[in-house]
Amino acid sequence: MKVAAVQFCAEPFRPFENQRRLSVRIEEAGDRGAELVVLPELAVSGYVLEKAKLDEVAEELNGPTLQSWTALASQRNVLIAGGFCEVSEGKLFNSAMLVGPQGLILHYRKLHLFDQERNIFAPGDLGLPVADTPLGRIGLCVCYDLRFVEVVRLLALQGAILTAVPTAWVGGFDQTPCDAEGFITQARGAVVQANLNQTYIACASQSGSVANQTFLGNSLVVDPYGKVLAGPLNAVAERTLVADFDARVALAAQHRSELVNPRTDRRTDVYGVHLHDRVL
Amino acid sequence: MKVAAVQFCAEPFRPFENQRRLSVRIEEAGDRGAELVVLPELAVSGYVLEKAKLDEVAEELNGPTLQSWTALASQRNVLIAGGFCEVSEGKLFNSAMLVGPQGLILHYRKLHLFDQERNIFAPGDLGLPVADTPLGRIGLCVCYDLRFVEVVRLLALQGAILTAVPTAWVGGFDQTPCDAEGFITQARGAVVQANLNQTYIACASQSGSVANQTFLGNSLVVDPYGKVLAGPLNAVAERTLVADFDARVALAAQHRSELVNPRTDRRTDVYGVHLHDRVL
Repeated sequence: MKVAAVQFCAEPFRPFENQRRLSVRIEEAGDRGAELVVLPELAVSGYVLEKAKLDEVAEELNGPTLQSWTALASQRNVLIAGGFCEVSEGKLFNSAMLVGPQGLILHYRKLHLFDQERNIFAPGDLGLPVADTPLGRIGLCVCYDLRFVEVVRLLALQGAILTAVPTAWVGGFDQTPCDAEGFITQARGAVVQANLNQTYIACASQSGSVANQTFLGNSLVVDPYGKVLAGPLNAVAERTLVADFDARVALAAQHRSELVNPRTDRRTDVYGVHLHDRVL
Repeated sequence: MKVAAVQFCAEPFRPFENQRRLSVRIEEAGDRGAELVVLPELAVSGYVLEKAKLDEVAEELNGPTLQSWTALASQRNVLIAGGFCEVSEGKLFNSAMLVGPQGLILHYRKLHLFDQERNIFAPGDLGLPVADTPLGRIGLCVCYDLRFVEVVRLLALQGAILTAVPTAWVGGFDQTPCDAEGFITQARGAVVQANLNQTYIACASQSGSVANQTFLGNSLVVDPYGKVLAGPLNAVAERTLVADFDARVALAAQHRSELVNPRTDRRTDVYGVHLHDRVL
């Protein structure tokens, strides 16, 4: 199976133009064999944090993006994961969804709001859901969520073999923006967390510059051993990465030998991670 | 304040010879200004997994290593963290301790036994303790423990500003032993976890080859932003890294701005990590 990570620079507050351009990228990814296409954070609205303008382009879950992606998913027989600006009961959410030929599969609202996002969005209230798909169990999280080790851990322990990460990586948070191999700190975080949780991680980032916002790109796909299969892309590229993934590889990474099993070697008699009232 | 990570190749089953050589290295680290000296996993016994021979050189907690390190700590006014082969009630443990001028500060038994270690050692039964020292609160874990994200998370959430990691990194677990910048996968794991948990991590590894065992070295010191302060050392070096550390830097990394606080931004209403019956 193949996953595509679409690095894309969304025009701020131009959802229809962005949808049109994203459709082209999704079709191109389908042409390259992708069965799962990951799009960036706020790919439809653009990532510029102006509340009044986001209010204008926000949509309800059952809005034009879900319609558009369902139609594309059906035509191309792909799954699509991406970020959009959601309005619900008067509140904005930095949301993502996974959509298939029959419509919505997974709905997620970003749990960890970064910096000025706190002044605009309500914090996510849908937990950390995973969904079974024909490609295997898949989880979603968004950008700053990746910095909280509980997130990928909980998705992986719920059985996700791939975590799709719509993101819009920006600088200023860590001290070194890019290392000698071209990785930003956030992308290294994805690599190591794929390794430590034995799960694929596919990050699709915004790139380039819009308004007062500069993105770092660095989209990449990592396997459950922490091997980088594709990327990281540079900060300005608008390109699509395509990489193979296979649930059996994730299972093999969890059970490496008779005596080395990173999942069952966990000391659940000593510690655990809980999600609401489930302990994992 | 300064921390030293001593990369060292211990002679298998020669505890007195190893103690003598370690004493020289501890004194040298003290001469270079170190107030905390981290030594490798099983630094005293050597890391070769032969049960009968380890039985012969294992010692009780209150044994010659604690005596030796207490004397050195007192003479040099340093703290010493390192690994030793412990026997208690007929069972062997892959243990580590933190020792100061007044004696034992922290006693830890490796929670996650790697591969053949399972056939030799009993699993750790002392949880994940941290201790307050004049240098700040310090935690300990050993080698394979680092692959379980709960470990550093729990030490950091208990307030450790530095995690000392006696280790004996070996190959065969992950696919790529060393990347273009000289890091093995395990060392990248330490770098990223320092960043994600806003804690210093100081890893002191065995190096070189003994009997049928080849070590990967890669000792390093990372700051709470994920910046590598020293190392990684190559696979065969026997050298000591010295780096600055400061509890205030760890606190600053946790609270970066009014709106970005990697600790308080955790969604403890949604998830948590528990250690026995404490939830963090």
